[in-house]
Amino acid sequence: MIENISQNKVFNGWQKQYTHDSNSLNCAMRFAIYLPPQASANSPVPVLYWLSGLTCTDENFMHKAGAFRKAAELGIAIVAPDTSPRGENVANVDGYDLGQGAGFYLNATQAPWSAHYQMYDYVTQELPALIEANFPVTSVKSISGHSMGGHGALTIGLKNQSAYRSISAFSPIANPMRCPWGQKAFSAYLGTDKSTWQNYDASYLLTQDKAELPMLVDQGDADQFLTEQLMPEALSAAAEQHGSKLTLRMQPGYDHSYYFIASFIDDHLIFHAKHLQG
Amino acid sequence: MIENISQNKVFNGWQKQYTHDSNSLNCAMRFAIYLPPQASANSPVPVLYWLSGLTCTDENFMHKAGAFRKAAELGIAIVAPDTSPRGENVANVDGYDLGQGAGFYLNATQAPWSAHYQMYDYVTQELPALIEANFPVTSVKSISGHSMGGHGALTIGLKNQSAYRSISAFSPIANPMRCPWGQKAFSAYLGTDKSTWQNYDASYLLTQDKAELPMLVDQGDADQFLTEQLMPEALSAAAEQHGSKLTLRMQPGYDHSYYFIASFIDDHLIFHAKHLQG
Repeated sequence: MIENISQNKVFNGWQKQYTHDSNSLNCAMRFAIYLPPQASANSPVPVLYWLSGLTCTDENFMHKAGAFRKAAELGIAIVAPDTSPRGENVANVDGYDLGQGAGFYLNATQAPWSAHYQMYDYVTQELPALIEANFPVTSVKSISGHSMGGHGALTIGLKNQSAYRSISAFSPIANPMRCPWGQKAFSAYLGTDKSTWQNYDASYLLTQDKAELPMLVDQGDADQFLTEQLMPEALSAAAEQHGSKLTLRMQPGYDHSYYFIASFIDDHLIFHAKHLQG
Repeated sequence: MIENISQNKVFNGWQKQYTHDSNSLNCAMRFAIYLPPQASANSPVPVLYWLSGLTCTDENFMHKAGAFRKAAELGIAIVAPDTSPRGENVANVDGYDLGQGAGFYLNATQAPWSAHYQMYDYVTQELPALIEANFPVTSVKSISGHSMGGHGALTIGLKNQSAYRSISAFSPIANPMRCPWGQKAFSAYLGTDKSTWQNYDASYLLTQDKAELPMLVDQGDADQFLTEQLMPEALSAAAEQHGSKLTLRMQPGYDHSYYFIASFIDDHLIFHAKHLQG
């Protein structure tokens, strides 16, 4: 059961928001979907899942990325989930980088987080099943995201290579085991045994095996979080170990904002379209 | 004296926010500017002024319109002022449609509003002088806006036809003397003498004389404010009286939101570029 709460026509398609009771997260969740004009029961379209960054909801990408023109042209649906479970009964703490708005796309194992923070299951299982049951889309999908959501897109894509056609990211937290944001979140959600962290670290995963999925990563070189938090060089080095297909583009002068995403989202949509429709 | 408070690279140009002490408004004001990559001291670019709607600031257009790609391609700067004077000492009331965030682009004559609410002078005189003195732009300009800002663009453009090359609007308050938003604002800012209102009513102005400037207006037919507040049919009828060059496009299914603006902003930029660069 999903309930529509808003809809806006945009570039001849529709941006819509829905709420539903999530089984995996044990709370009400909201997501947004863009359905391009091509989408109909007789002509279902492939889906790009977009995972947002710290503090975001389902709305940031839809408001600010400027993705609709190209998505409408290419005939790709875009689904943007929220970034964590939400609500009064959901564990939270002060600060923007842990708790609500900061789910890190993993399955928490530690109290009090484990009762709701199961974003990995939500994004990989529950949400695609819900989308495919309720909208004119195929099961063909790719995944992308920004910052914490770039980490989510890379780790989820790498661990589910048969489920997705391609992976991309803007300014991903590429090596979370080694940065303050990742260490804080993983300690809280997963506990002190760092062997459980590896499973959610894109750079670690790429050291283990060759990735067959194509990956496109854009990173601004004026990003205020580049050195301390993002570490794209670790991702790049790990990808080289087994010849994984990573294209990492350092974009001069760009920062961590949606202005950066808007500037290059068309490239990502074209990249995914090639693999979604190939 | 203007002070830079933020800057983000976007589509190879720069979106920047500034504050300054406004003489006409007698308070500190903020504005945003997009400078396309072509803009330099040796190659100044023309400017499109964008006037936002009720509740907006200088940020809404920059965050949500998706205008940078085309503005960068065409080499047009975009300036977005705030929608009213601001601050603790500036008159205000509860509600979104009068006071701060609702300046209506006029010069108030009534207390307590007249001390600060001089948005007409700010947009027509002070702001362009400031922009032309501080940025690599020419004095060639056009004007556009949304809702209350569409009203502002039409009335300011029509009353200053030698200052602008072209006018456009999304969902403008086209006949404010006859709608609740306009009547409330004009009563407060201008008083009960309705002869003073005519000067700020685009539909009235078009009944007085032929407009030589080209005008492009887009209006969604699913706009929740269409019938009660916007009245594009009055604008259209007035334009026909003297053969003014108005293109009014009713866009099926579109509402009053920035999703609508994003869908057609490229058309407006192309329209203005033709006149700015002609």
